[in-house]
Amino acid sequence: MARQERAIETRRKLLVGAAQVFDERGYAAASINEIQERSGVTKGAMYFHFASKEEIARGVMAAQTEIPVETRSRSASPMQQVIDLTHELARRLRTDVLFRASIRLTVERGTFQANDSDLYDWWLRAFGRELARAQGAGELRPEMAPEDVAASVVGSFTGIQMLSHVTCDRRDLHERLARWWEQILPGIATPEAVRTMLPAGSPGLDLPDGA
Amino acid sequence: MARQERAIETRRKLLVGAAQVFDERGYAAASINEIQERSGVTKGAMYFHFASKEEIARGVMAAQTEIPVETRSRSASPMQQVIDLTHELARRLRTDVLFRASIRLTVERGTFQANDSDLYDWWLRAFGRELARAQGAGELRPEMAPEDVAASVVGSFTGIQMLSHVTCDRRDLHERLARWWEQILPGIATPEAVRTMLPAGSPGLDLPDGA
Repeated sequence: MARQERAIETRRKLLVGAAQVFDERGYAAASINEIQERSGVTKGAMYFHFASKEEIARGVMAAQTEIPVETRSRSASPMQQVIDLTHELARRLRTDVLFRASIRLTVERGTFQANDSDLYDWWLRAFGRELARAQGAGELRPEMAPEDVAASVVGSFTGIQMLSHVTCDRRDLHERLARWWEQILPGIATPEAVRTMLPAGSPGLDLPDGA
Repeated sequence: MARQERAIETRRKLLVGAAQVFDERGYAAASINEIQERSGVTKGAMYFHFASKEEIARGVMAAQTEIPVETRSRSASPMQQVIDLTHELARRLRTDVLFRASIRLTVERGTFQANDSDLYDWWLRAFGRELARAQGAGELRPEMAPEDVAASVVGSFTGIQMLSHVTCDRRDLHERLARWWEQILPGIATPEAVRTMLPAGSPGLDLPDGA
């Protein structure tokens, strides 16, 4: 392995090890020693990449923004893409410890000093853009402001996944999201769009068992 | 003051002091010494009431369940009562440190060992009951399961208040809730109910400035 590849690999190991520890204990109770041990890298290598626990946490949180907003859905409908994206994020919460930890850290804001609204703003913009496209395609009602709908989608997704996490370790998350989309679509989508959207997500999203 | 009154007063001081510390720092970073100092009670009195930080936190969290589910709304409509209750909870989040801390602790679940779904279950049942009444009154669509709608309301409320907290210290919370109700009512309420409900809450709810 070339030196640069090795550095990328070490950084990744650190982020995944840190994600496991943050996912289990939260930010405040996670120790930098445990992160180093779990990652299987040397102390020297760790401090080469990250100067502090806070810096590692920021690296884990930033992993959210590397998720392709397009999803694996092949739907031509922007509104269906929005629905599919929420199911794709739900799938990642259930299967990807790096994403799960990054959401947990974002939610725990307040244990950090800095302003942590950046990640929420990132999602608000990502969903807002897709919803503006849906409006252009005649799917989002013309009287709706895409940013208001984005705020409801991001807010509701955040809380619904938490509720599902606490009550049943996210086993019913896809089901809960599907119910939520059924409930909210008539108020935000045009009647034609309501008829054609699939609240449980497009086929081929490759959701885990029980989805 | 009789001895029993004094004990109730001391317990309340401890809960409020603890709420201030938990609200600022979260569970893990809060210290029992700071809670004692902030409460202005003696160490002996503190340990008479609570054996540990976890026990104090459970006391703070339990304060949620003392909120009257009826709200100060005088609306005769059960669906409007549900809407008003979300605005009442939003108002408390903005003005009542004990309630705010209890929600923060509930959200931080995972820093505790025990199963923390009890409080969510409590809210799901409280909203489920009101929504069943709304269905009986012809306001909730007959094909809706009240418990599915309750799950959406509790989940969405939880996430929307978090998003509002992180992005603007909850200044836009009533506005965000009103938008959310406008969006979801057409899908869950009967057409007659959609026409008469007030998504921003009944008059007389006494919401804070900017609401």
